[in-house]
Amino acid sequence: MAFPQQVRIVEVGPRDGLQNEPGPIIPTEIKVELINRLSAAGIRHIEAASFVSPKWVPQMGDAAAVMAGIKRHPGVTYSALTPNVKGLEGAMAANTEEVAVFAAASEAFSQKNINCSIAESLARFVPLIEQARAADIRVRGYVSTVLGCPYQGEIDPAQVAAVSRELIDMGCHEVSLGDTTGAGTPLKAKQMLAEVTKAIPVQQLAAHFHDTYGQALANLYAVLEEGIAVIDSSTAGLGGCPYAKGASGNVATEDVLYLLQGMNIETGIDLQAVVQTGHWITRELGRHNGSKVAQAWGECSR
Amino acid sequence: MAFPQQVRIVEVGPRDGLQNEPGPIIPTEIKVELINRLSAAGIRHIEAASFVSPKWVPQMGDAAAVMAGIKRHPGVTYSALTPNVKGLEGAMAANTEEVAVFAAASEAFSQKNINCSIAESLARFVPLIEQARAADIRVRGYVSTVLGCPYQGEIDPAQVAAVSRELIDMGCHEVSLGDTTGAGTPLKAKQMLAEVTKAIPVQQLAAHFHDTYGQALANLYAVLEEGIAVIDSSTAGLGGCPYAKGASGNVATEDVLYLLQGMNIETGIDLQAVVQTGHWITRELGRHNGSKVAQAWGECSR
Repeated sequence: MAFPQQVRIVEVGPRDGLQNEPGPIIPTEIKVELINRLSAAGIRHIEAASFVSPKWVPQMGDAAAVMAGIKRHPGVTYSALTPNVKGLEGAMAANTEEVAVFAAASEAFSQKNINCSIAESLARFVPLIEQARAADIRVRGYVSTVLGCPYQGEIDPAQVAAVSRELIDMGCHEVSLGDTTGAGTPLKAKQMLAEVTKAIPVQQLAAHFHDTYGQALANLYAVLEEGIAVIDSSTAGLGGCPYAKGASGNVATEDVLYLLQGMNIETGIDLQAVVQTGHWITRELGRHNGSKVAQAWGECSR
Repeated sequence: MAFPQQVRIVEVGPRDGLQNEPGPIIPTEIKVELINRLSAAGIRHIEAASFVSPKWVPQMGDAAAVMAGIKRHPGVTYSALTPNVKGLEGAMAANTEEVAVFAAASEAFSQKNINCSIAESLARFVPLIEQARAADIRVRGYVSTVLGCPYQGEIDPAQVAAVSRELIDMGCHEVSLGDTTGAGTPLKAKQMLAEVTKAIPVQQLAAHFHDTYGQALANLYAVLEEGIAVIDSSTAGLGGCPYAKGASGNVATEDVLYLLQGMNIETGIDLQAVVQTGHWITRELGRHNGSKVAQAWGECSR
């Protein structure tokens, strides 16, 4: 066992979370306040927006306004998803210092989700990543469906490793491994990671695990044992599961922080402040709070 | 790592679960049907009732009728909680083959919960256990608050070990280690277990973990790594947390089974049948289904 002493949390609630929330478009000032509260709580990496066509994702149509509205704390990375060069240009105009691109480990998922093969999606990112790096913008890669695909089922860990390695070779500084369906279990997560770390050092990898089957914290514990030190999570578990109505998607940041705190792993984040932020945003959205820690503590401070 | 090849699930929903459900008294026939459905699903150990004064726990006032009403499958253990000799006599009259006694690792919890010191509670069990064993009835011991107490906070693992050892010495065949508050995290669970296994072989121990802070599966994974092969859980997560309104209590059997299935650990239980039973009982009770697997799969079969 080699648990990390510190873990970096990448808070994906404002983008991956809100994007998957049903209901009306959330006002820009709410998104801005959410991000500001999260950075004030000590979160040092926040995925703040997505520069994607508002035709496709209306909820993210105000990405430029969000990036302009937030109070930028020194030492905090505010990143944005950029599916194409047009998105990158929007992100650059909004003074974004890190962008993210999104590939799949599953051919079927790639086709259904972004209408092209994995190879085509990677080829499209080549000019994007070159242009970003020329402008000193860091690029994070996402690989989805690493522990299963809603369309094709099992995924070969070697395929996850190959796609991840390509993203690194193309210039990504980090690859976030997404259990999109939440179907993973701890040993599968370890086996997948063992394969990927043959191709990429664990220091360049992040775990982006969904809690759809309640397994996320067990899976995170298992990959922490293998040295994973970057975890994506979403305050209040914002963002449902697009494949099962009413089911959970992103693991809640509060519950991850509670786990890490109990293991004496440093994050620099004030759990209580995140819990309060989660209560605030779920009240604003009229949504159930998906964090068990938040449910257990209630609305009172502690 | 030494994961067990098989795990025995002790289903506590009909007793520990229903006992902590708010709302009106559940009809005997519903309790009987729940137990029958669970045994039909392949669960081989079901805590079916509590022989306790109905003045204290009105929900369990029909324990004798429940034990008389269930269809007893060969190979299935139907156990009952017996807080005192009177309870044992009730359980014996109802032809119960295994009973359970309940002690705490926390002095404060023992005082508040059962109005006596730990030593007094253990002393009271001496005649009960003797009488049970004379009648060839097995006795299971519960130790609560093993990873924290709602009244005194931290619990010394040595205290958990001492109380557990006393229960074994008194004649219990197994001790179930209860994280009553759900406040535990994986390394604390491992440290506690390491201390207890200095006093008792792991084969005589069970994990009874609550999911109040979302940590139960991570904690179970951690103790499975240490050889724990008996897990207490509750279908649909029946039973709330008595210390935080609206928060979770027992970990859901479905989610534990999903974890074990993913690790190729045998239980002999049909997960799909348990999911259907969980949907049925939560409809009957008008209650939220606390299993994430059940939420993800929905009401459809699979």
